[in-house]
Amino acid sequence: MAYLLYYWDGLPGRGEFIRLALEDAGAEYVDIARGPESDGQGTPALLQVLDGGGEHFPPFAPPFLRDGQVLVSHVANILMYLAPKLDLGPTEEGLRHFANGLQLTITDCVAEVHDTHHPISTAAYYEDQIPAAKERSAAFLATRLPKYLGYFERVLQLNPSGPHHAVGKELSYVDLSLFQLVAGLRYAFPRAMSHFSHDYPALDAVHAMVGVRPRLARYLASKRRLHFNESGVFRHYAELDHAPPSR
Amino acid sequence: MAYLLYYWDGLPGRGEFIRLALEDAGAEYVDIARGPESDGQGTPALLQVLDGGGEHFPPFAPPFLRDGQVLVSHVANILMYLAPKLDLGPTEEGLRHFANGLQLTITDCVAEVHDTHHPISTAAYYEDQIPAAKERSAAFLATRLPKYLGYFERVLQLNPSGPHHAVGKELSYVDLSLFQLVAGLRYAFPRAMSHFSHDYPALDAVHAMVGVRPRLARYLASKRRLHFNESGVFRHYAELDHAPPSR
Repeated sequence: MAYLLYYWDGLPGRGEFIRLALEDAGAEYVDIARGPESDGQGTPALLQVLDGGGEHFPPFAPPFLRDGQVLVSHVANILMYLAPKLDLGPTEEGLRHFANGLQLTITDCVAEVHDTHHPISTAAYYEDQIPAAKERSAAFLATRLPKYLGYFERVLQLNPSGPHHAVGKELSYVDLSLFQLVAGLRYAFPRAMSHFSHDYPALDAVHAMVGVRPRLARYLASKRRLHFNESGVFRHYAELDHAPPSR
Repeated sequence: MAYLLYYWDGLPGRGEFIRLALEDAGAEYVDIARGPESDGQGTPALLQVLDGGGEHFPPFAPPFLRDGQVLVSHVANILMYLAPKLDLGPTEEGLRHFANGLQLTITDCVAEVHDTHHPISTAAYYEDQIPAAKERSAAFLATRLPKYLGYFERVLQLNPSGPHHAVGKELSYVDLSLFQLVAGLRYAFPRAMSHFSHDYPALDAVHAMVGVRPRLARYLASKRRLHFNESGVFRHYAELDHAPPSR
């Protein structure tokens, strides 16, 4: 039975981390909010679950995934649930939780990226919080972004199985998510990311490796792949992007 | 072998969610940063792990937990790891991931509470970001806090096993974390939480039930329990706290 993925239409956002895993595995899934309302899909179908229509175990927010009777929410949780079914993660207990910890670190980084353009309120427009957004972005680019990227680079370099994957010696959902994180950061902050390949070579190599995996390359070139835009988590506002200090 | 918990000394913070699970289960653990440096503990022992001294699978930030050869980071990940060992969570796959989704929603709420006093930069003092903190707190109390609390109340009310627990018919780590969330919110925002018991009766009952569990009651009265203070996640600044609009 196909997985049902629920995420807002029109932006890659957090849903894209799930799509990459499903697409790389060649799994059958329905992207509910992007389907036709005439088939009971579309945004109304997503809102119906969010509004609690008959769910015993309601989710707080998209993305969430339905697999038969099971409904799982939150990116890291969904990926941990899917990993053994899609063969996209380690099986050993310690490594499973290490992978989940890495994914939660990606989650934290993505939340901080979101707050660069929405530091005051998610309910208000970007245009109504630009001064605070400039301050928060400057702080993010100066201290937080290098900390996150340096951490992921270090994880790759320290991997006892080699620097080609985040966990173990095979591709996992964490590598796919690192691809999306790097792609999003490059879209949002091209100036701040201008030295990325030089500064974070192992992370850059993971990004390159994931992008040419056959199923993913076909997906990335398809209409199913949504482009980054200013409705999503990764937004490009030139006034928030700064070149790193020269060294 | 005792679990080794690594978290900053001097504040309950995110580490407290782990302590509550260990204490309720009566598990043996060492609170490393609060131990004596003469025994190889204290803050230097925490920093050594963070600075990557020989770890193959380094954590990004505290809290993290060492269990023999395994090192697990992030509150929700640690609790999901501990649940089967401490008998503090459901065993069925769908419910395990529902519990993890709830814990990740608590994580998100805690991060938003943190950002009420640090909306611009974690590297700067609260005193240097008060105007933005006032704006963010007002938005949090007006829209986000009722959304989170309303969600948890709804989860309890919808529990097919009854409203006494978040997941299933037995206590889980999610109930313990809801206790800490409510306690922290009451400390930080006493005015905003003044109608809490009336508005969220099932959540209030979970808070009351957890606080009188025998092992936890002894822990909460002990010196091991750290009081909320203005170094932690839940901080009380009167200027950020507002009574809810009258209804």
